Amino acid sequence: MRLSRYFIPVLKEAPSDAQIVSHQLMLRAGLIRQEAAGIYAWLPLGHRVLRKIEQIVREEQDRAGAVEMLMPTIQLADLWRESGRYEDYGQEMLRIVDRHERDLLYGPTNEEMITEIFRAYCKSYKDVPKLLYHIQWKFRDERRPRFGVMRGREFLMKDAYSFDIDEDAARKAYNRMFVAYLNTFARMGLKSVPMRADTGPIGGDLSHEFIVLAETGESEVFCHQDLVEMGAPGADVDFDGDLQPLVDERTALYAATEEMHEADRFAAEVPEDKRLSARGIEVGHIFYFGTKYSEPMKALVTHPDGKERPVHMGSYGVGVSRLMGAIIEASHDENGIIWPESVAPFGVGIINMRSDDADTSAACDKAYEALTKAGKEPLLDDTGERAGAKFATMDLIGLPYQLVIGPRGLKEGKVELKVRRTGEKLELPLDEAIKRLAEG
Amino acid sequence: MRLSRYFIPVLKEAPSDAQIVSHQLMLRAGLIRQEAAGIYAWLPLGHRVLRKIEQIVREEQDRAGAVEMLMPTIQLADLWRESGRYEDYGQEMLRIVDRHERDLLYGPTNEEMITEIFRAYCKSYKDVPKLLYHIQWKFRDERRPRFGVMRGREFLMKDAYSFDIDEDAARKAYNRMFVAYLNTFARMGLKSVPMRADTGPIGGDLSHEFIVLAETGESEVFCHQDLVEMGAPGADVDFDGDLQPLVDERTALYAATEEMHEADRFAAEVPEDKRLSARGIEVGHIFYFGTKYSEPMKALVTHPDGKERPVHMGSYGVGVSRLMGAIIEASHDENGIIWPESVAPFGVGIINMRSDDADTSAACDKAYEALTKAGKEPLLDDTGERAGAKFATMDLIGLPYQLVIGPRGLKEGKVELKVRRTGEKLELPLDEAIKRLAEG
Repeated sequence: MRLSRYFIPVLKEAPSDAQIVSHQLMLRAGLIRQEAAGIYAWLPLGHRVLRKIEQIVREEQDRAGAVEMLMPTIQLADLWRESGRYEDYGQEMLRIVDRHERDLLYGPTNEEMITEIFRAYCKSYKDVPKLLYHIQWKFRDERRPRFGVMRGREFLMKDAYSFDIDEDAARKAYNRMFVAYLNTFARMGLKSVPMRADTGPIGGDLSHEFIVLAETGESEVFCHQDLVEMGAPGADVDFDGDLQPLVDERTALYAATEEMHEADRFAAEVPEDKRLSARGIEVGHIFYFGTKYSEPMKALVTHPDGKERPVHMGSYGVGVSRLMGAIIEASHDENGIIWPESVAPFGVGIINMRSDDADTSAACDKAYEALTKAGKEPLLDDTGERAGAKFATMDLIGLPYQLVIGPRGLKEGKVELKVRRTGEKLELPLDEAIKRLAEG
Repeated sequence: MRLSRYFIPVLKEAPSDAQIVSHQLMLRAGLIRQEAAGIYAWLPLGHRVLRKIEQIVREEQDRAGAVEMLMPTIQLADLWRESGRYEDYGQEMLRIVDRHERDLLYGPTNEEMITEIFRAYCKSYKDVPKLLYHIQWKFRDERRPRFGVMRGREFLMKDAYSFDIDEDAARKAYNRMFVAYLNTFARMGLKSVPMRADTGPIGGDLSHEFIVLAETGESEVFCHQDLVEMGAPGADVDFDGDLQPLVDERTALYAATEEMHEADRFAAEVPEDKRLSARGIEVGHIFYFGTKYSEPMKALVTHPDGKERPVHMGSYGVGVSRLMGAIIEASHDENGIIWPESVAPFGVGIINMRSDDADTSAACDKAYEALTKAGKEPLLDDTGERAGAKFATMDLIGLPYQLVIGPRGLKEGKVELKVRRTGEKLELPLDEAIKRLAEG
């Protein structure tokens, strides 16, 4: 993309109501614009990152055997009356009345709707297991939306739902999502730790939050240091195989959010030099809830013995738009964002130091064409801005690499290649720089 | 994808309230499920087609130089009060009040919001032209939603907006979209004809609807036969060059929807053997509206002479979800849908005639692996259904090719390759069938 044809409205300063660094940087780097409290437009650069995050989530859901579909944003209130949640949900639910005085709502989550879909078509043990997901906009009317996309009202979420014959089978779906989440967040350059979460009145131990560690995280978390270093299982996992050992390995060690933390257990179970207390951000939540919805909504399947029983369900969420904030919280410096390559809006920024110089522009065009061809998605700053402003913008928007091309360097046959994360700079011939970037 | 792990709930009969063939087939083939009047869930197969249609629209917008972003679904009523449309819009607007008693609405279109975004950042003639688009869910509270996704309430739309210094410059953006639309619809196997549309009180001749011809179309249209055969300019168009000749060629001949039709002119301008009256479906609408929004909303740019003037705007819509219905209306037979290859949910259907036979299953697996590797996205029916039902389902869901593998054929070293559109069947060795499909 040529910046002269693009639209990145960077700001000198973030509005004073942006309290956390990811919110400030997203506004300053022209990723988002607030359109109402907790409601954002995704400007071109932010939209590109959002799509890359979404695509990683999608690929890992697919790999785990989940099947993608798409439910609408607007739902019938009657559906929620069936489960009993319409009244319970409270003011966070955005309630709507249509022209025919019918009660609707903007979906904050989709357990009811997916249960309705399942029960319409699936009646037998032969129809399970099913593991379905969608990536769709949700709305929760937060009393006090804040922290930018971290606690917005309209937000993009991946939610998956599993349907199984019994709890044992449901645990297999749960494990699939558990492992898929580890891989998902690792691909975004994040260190995530699964932490036991409150299951509420249903009980059981099948609920985990996935917490990303970041100095500026929203809440305090406590865990065994080894969990952080354990790494993700990776793309070679056999999702049809037994995933229980992978899950056990990661749930055997202590890990708890502030709400679930037990200081005594932490001290007793974790050696002192392994006790990590840090700040964290919740980016995923998986939950087995048995027949909580299938019972009242009569989603029954006939078992081999001929009897009908409610299907066992779980739900599995990832905060897709929230992840953008979490990634920035985990990866930035005083000059701006530092995107991991996997979610960077563009792979390389090319800075034309003198757009009015024909040789410089020709060299930039050459690099631009070659890197485009190599699939590196370069962003070429071909505007008439002064060099200092171009450097600052490029650091702010945080592309992994910068290729600086100017008339002085070209005379010596050199361009500058800068690594955004380390600040490392190399002077080398243009062809070599292109080759390095194309192969990197 | 293996059908045993997928979810295609086909129906024997369409519900009786489905009046048109695309609605019937979308329900029967398990593409969609109605969740409320005019509100649909996109089941896995339907979701795949929707994403392919969306991706073609996106690629052609990008090629034409439009920049993608994403605006939220929920908007502030105040924004629409600025333009004067909040009261005017009537009952089709879904009005919402949030927990703080603030007036919101579910966006039926985005002229106001994009104008607000433009005016926040762009102040000078140096900041134009801008051509921005997004693909997002919209809501129009139709009094009587009907015809499935053709006239739903929640629907997916691509809307682009152009910002230019004056009408001459705006016409260039208009022409870009005009040509992009021809290419977009052609890639989906549709014959589209641009027809002059009513510009309302603004006047001028810069508004066109893009009409797809289909026997079962919603309204009558009239045009010169040559327009239908003219074809699309194709991917080689230079969008930075002069597009006016391409546009002129397609607007010189008579073409009008029922509302704009003038029988006298039709008779006078079109030779009798070229007079085509047919049924059509509107799938796109482009519109230059000058300063209609920029004036009341004060989206001003400073001209080189130092004076501020309202920016000139246009808007350009494509009904993404509606296109699925239009494609089916234009391409089906008595047995089901016939997807054009570009939007088919899967490229090839492999039918295992005897899932309990090891050799047959091995041959199916071989074909499945090879075609997956070749990027043909096969769907393998590996279920225990009887052969007749498998044939019927495969015809109904309309994949372009079917590869039928059974024990009897294999004994003779043969499989059957069927072309869905023509019904043509070939018997040939498995390897040859794979090769044909992989290279096709």
